[in-house]
Amino acid sequence: MNHRICAAAALALLAPLAGAQTTPQGSRDLPARSIPVPDTVSPQMQKLIGAPLTPTWNVIPKTAEEWKAQVSAGYEATMKSLPALREALGVKVEPITLDGVKAYMVTPSSIPPQNRNRLLVHVHGGCFVSFPGESGTAEAVYMAGIGGFRVISVDYRMPPDHPYPAALDDAITAWKAATRMAPPKNMAIFGSSAGGNLTLAMVLRAKQEKLALPAAIAPGTPMSDLTNAGDSFQTNAALDNVLVAPGANCDKRAALYIAGRDPKDPLLSPVYGDLRGFPPAILTTGTRDLLLSSTVRVHRKLRQAGVEAVLQVYEGQSHAHYYRDVSAPETREAFGEIAQFFDKHLAK
Amino acid sequence: MNHRICAAAALALLAPLAGAQTTPQGSRDLPARSIPVPDTVSPQMQKLIGAPLTPTWNVIPKTAEEWKAQVSAGYEATMKSLPALREALGVKVEPITLDGVKAYMVTPSSIPPQNRNRLLVHVHGGCFVSFPGESGTAEAVYMAGIGGFRVISVDYRMPPDHPYPAALDDAITAWKAATRMAPPKNMAIFGSSAGGNLTLAMVLRAKQEKLALPAAIAPGTPMSDLTNAGDSFQTNAALDNVLVAPGANCDKRAALYIAGRDPKDPLLSPVYGDLRGFPPAILTTGTRDLLLSSTVRVHRKLRQAGVEAVLQVYEGQSHAHYYRDVSAPETREAFGEIAQFFDKHLAK
Repeated sequence: MNHRICAAAALALLAPLAGAQTTPQGSRDLPARSIPVPDTVSPQMQKLIGAPLTPTWNVIPKTAEEWKAQVSAGYEATMKSLPALREALGVKVEPITLDGVKAYMVTPSSIPPQNRNRLLVHVHGGCFVSFPGESGTAEAVYMAGIGGFRVISVDYRMPPDHPYPAALDDAITAWKAATRMAPPKNMAIFGSSAGGNLTLAMVLRAKQEKLALPAAIAPGTPMSDLTNAGDSFQTNAALDNVLVAPGANCDKRAALYIAGRDPKDPLLSPVYGDLRGFPPAILTTGTRDLLLSSTVRVHRKLRQAGVEAVLQVYEGQSHAHYYRDVSAPETREAFGEIAQFFDKHLAK
Repeated sequence: MNHRICAAAALALLAPLAGAQTTPQGSRDLPARSIPVPDTVSPQMQKLIGAPLTPTWNVIPKTAEEWKAQVSAGYEATMKSLPALREALGVKVEPITLDGVKAYMVTPSSIPPQNRNRLLVHVHGGCFVSFPGESGTAEAVYMAGIGGFRVISVDYRMPPDHPYPAALDDAITAWKAATRMAPPKNMAIFGSSAGGNLTLAMVLRAKQEKLALPAAIAPGTPMSDLTNAGDSFQTNAALDNVLVAPGANCDKRAALYIAGRDPKDPLLSPVYGDLRGFPPAILTTGTRDLLLSSTVRVHRKLRQAGVEAVLQVYEGQSHAHYYRDVSAPETREAFGEIAQFFDKHLAK
């Protein structure tokens, strides 16, 4: 019960108390309650939804060294899980360098004919600070294995040593190098969370620099608004067991990336960008995702800009739950949808 | 403050208390809190989101006569608002009869050339009991006016006098008659809430009876699961200020429709139906919608059945908020998306 008590205590700090005199007009007062795990998802997803809150969701390191220690612990845990994931999906991962930027070539054991001349570029999540090196390749392994695509996963530089724009600079350098390995019309960019932010920011930067654009993008539950505007930051607080609540660990990591700049800069918060001319996009989120609003708001901005954009919202899922369990049917479904979308829009 | 206290009290009855011994494993305990109106929507939508709970959300009539009185009050209120809506959108509404079924022909003042030979069929919402007669035409007026389509709005029979399958029988009779007025490939069926349920059930029935199918459908926030399975029945309880919570007035109305049958029958809960062979579908909901799960679950079932199905989720909106204010940009956006989808899929 400890984590439950902690969550309730922390949330009480984050949200104004019901009935308080400062309650703004129109606020919805909700009583304390207990939300059960839904039975409308697979047993594997029920397990993820019923899991305790991320242990470090509100553990905030105080120094750069403490941040590195926390990131290192996450790195070690992820690295332990990757061999089994690669094995399950028949995928190999090899380090490469693209014009000085570190990356990984992620290759499935079998590539269907229509994907032989196609190439995807992946930018990983981790709130701009976590999952360095090979630990950032997990989502690329899912995409390569389930979709049958070759994927370049970019190991971009991160805070605390390298704030914005280092990650975006590296991602763009990798993109430029990758477009010499395959025709851009045969390529897509994808990534979730911070990787969804970077996917969108890469297209904004590529537009600015008049680079070739990919034929499609798949920003998953993108951190599209680093100002934390958006209804689901409030409505899904504490329901989402991954990010849990605004103002907590993930946002502190994002602050290291922003490093004092204006978070409303579209290259930091792409929802405020000019999205006209974007390639077709597929966005993925869940009903309990703290970034549900950050996802559906970008979807609407894309549609308002005349872009073909499709939205997938998975029942009961918290932030990026769709690549946590390789055995969950929802995982195959999510990457299957993205693969089908890419197949529709990428040249061969 | 009265409605707030009532809501909190009622919700406390509906949801197990946080930390109670009966809390099932994996349940998420949420503290009491106050959710502000988001600033990421238009001022008109902020007003709808900040409005008090539907006054009758948990006022449950005890007899058929009391139900009719409650329905009559809703009828009168809606009828008062319709002339201004028709005026704003330049739409006229005339009663018609289709093989004995009452309906309304809803015609915009201007029909663009591509829509001249097209015809839509509308089935209204109201939890299967409300909005009889002309009061059921509001959504049809929005669609006709914003999309520039001729619309037949079906005034189907309802409980307490006429439980299932009267409404569906009437809707199918109207559909058959309408397919003699235009080619089915030039036609679509749409409707929200109970109308979303009926839209889906009509296609299931048409498949069973080997009738012509429409070229597209637009089930809006469909009551697709009358068993009330679905995570958002819990997660969005009391956040949604229209339906508010499961087990309340709307569900009691649905129970009059079900009238003792198995609610898992696909013609009552279409999410359990065989959705293969369905026409392309566009589904609309909001992040605070009590039926968010009922919408995204049908979307997934359609995709799993190989059906082209697109999902629109609007920031902060409760149940069917997208046709409450003709001046809200989100209203034009929602019906504009549906019109564009119909234009893509309907023959001319």
